Amino acid sequence: MERLKKQIDFINEAEKLKTIKRQNITLDNLRPENSAEHSWHLAIMAMVLMEQSRTSDLDQFKVIKMLLIHDIVEISAGDTFLYDEDKREEAHENERIALEKLGAILPLDQGQELIELWNEFELGESEEARFARSLDALQPLLNRLITAPENHNPHGITNQKVMEKKSFIQNYTPKLWPIVEETVKQSVAKGLYE
Amino acid sequence: MERLKKQIDFINEAEKLKTIKRQNITLDNLRPENSAEHSWHLAIMAMVLMEQSRTSDLDQFKVIKMLLIHDIVEISAGDTFLYDEDKREEAHENERIALEKLGAILPLDQGQELIELWNEFELGESEEARFARSLDALQPLLNRLITAPENHNPHGITNQKVMEKKSFIQNYTPKLWPIVEETVKQSVAKGLYE
Repeated sequence: MERLKKQIDFINEAEKLKTIKRQNITLDNLRPENSAEHSWHLAIMAMVLMEQSRTSDLDQFKVIKMLLIHDIVEISAGDTFLYDEDKREEAHENERIALEKLGAILPLDQGQELIELWNEFELGESEEARFARSLDALQPLLNRLITAPENHNPHGITNQKVMEKKSFIQNYTPKLWPIVEETVKQSVAKGLYE
Repeated sequence: MERLKKQIDFINEAEKLKTIKRQNITLDNLRPENSAEHSWHLAIMAMVLMEQSRTSDLDQFKVIKMLLIHDIVEISAGDTFLYDEDKREEAHENERIALEKLGAILPLDQGQELIELWNEFELGESEEARFARSLDALQPLLNRLITAPENHNPHGITNQKVMEKKSFIQNYTPKLWPIVEETVKQSVAKGLYE
């Protein structure tokens, strides 16, 4: 029962991820997308795109678990905008502290598993992590093209900058690269990047 | 490439689930919870609670996939309040039509898999579906206790009605039953049920 209570405490803590706002928006009243629904979208992407990964022997279940928890540290650390270089360094340290705090809510073995899964995603050395990171980089492009109003580019992001940030997808998941190129091309045409 | 494009079309269609509002709210400004973040929360619950299932040989990956897609038909059919008995009958037919439409966006084999997974959840005959349905019934109780303001019960739901609706959890996932009882007890004390 002690173990079950810790699990429920973690589930209740996870509720907070629904309050963490991202830069992109959703289709209803231009509400900011939150990290919980973003994580859901990534897991759905993984379900349908798994065959597009570089290898055929991916641990598919691990990919999905990784995507479900990859942003959970933002509960304490907040979301950091991809193009905010200064903040991203600082964010990383805050995220590590948040991860330890979250892990400590769970029973010891499950806390350890959470930390390992998160670190594996962050390091991006396994095939599972590389595929998961590709989806995490592709989702905001797809989402933005659909949801952003025309000529909306408040941070003045350039076409070149986006391609530079997303270029790793070409190596990690080459089959998805044409989708990145096409989505950015359409986004430039819509005025979402300079 | 034709296949990949269909997969991306489905991912773009899934964006709409973030706009489907549920009865419960979130911790930020009492915003209604949407079905995408609810589905994410369920997948997280499954990750940590899997050991509480009735059998030890569950197909865990299937449970998570089921939870990720179980509400996706609401994109066209909308969410139906658990306690609205009249609407629930009609909703079921709309959901079936929505499911066919969604399945048709995907490549044939993947559309078929989606339909089978959704039907398995709906029927609740497999151990995986029964465990998944238990989580789907527990999540709103946990969420509501945390997020609802004191004495908030606009539909006048009674303690007895809730216990009746959730009673199947006692059979499907007996280890979670004490959590249901405790959560409802605390919710009654907070004035969330009569």
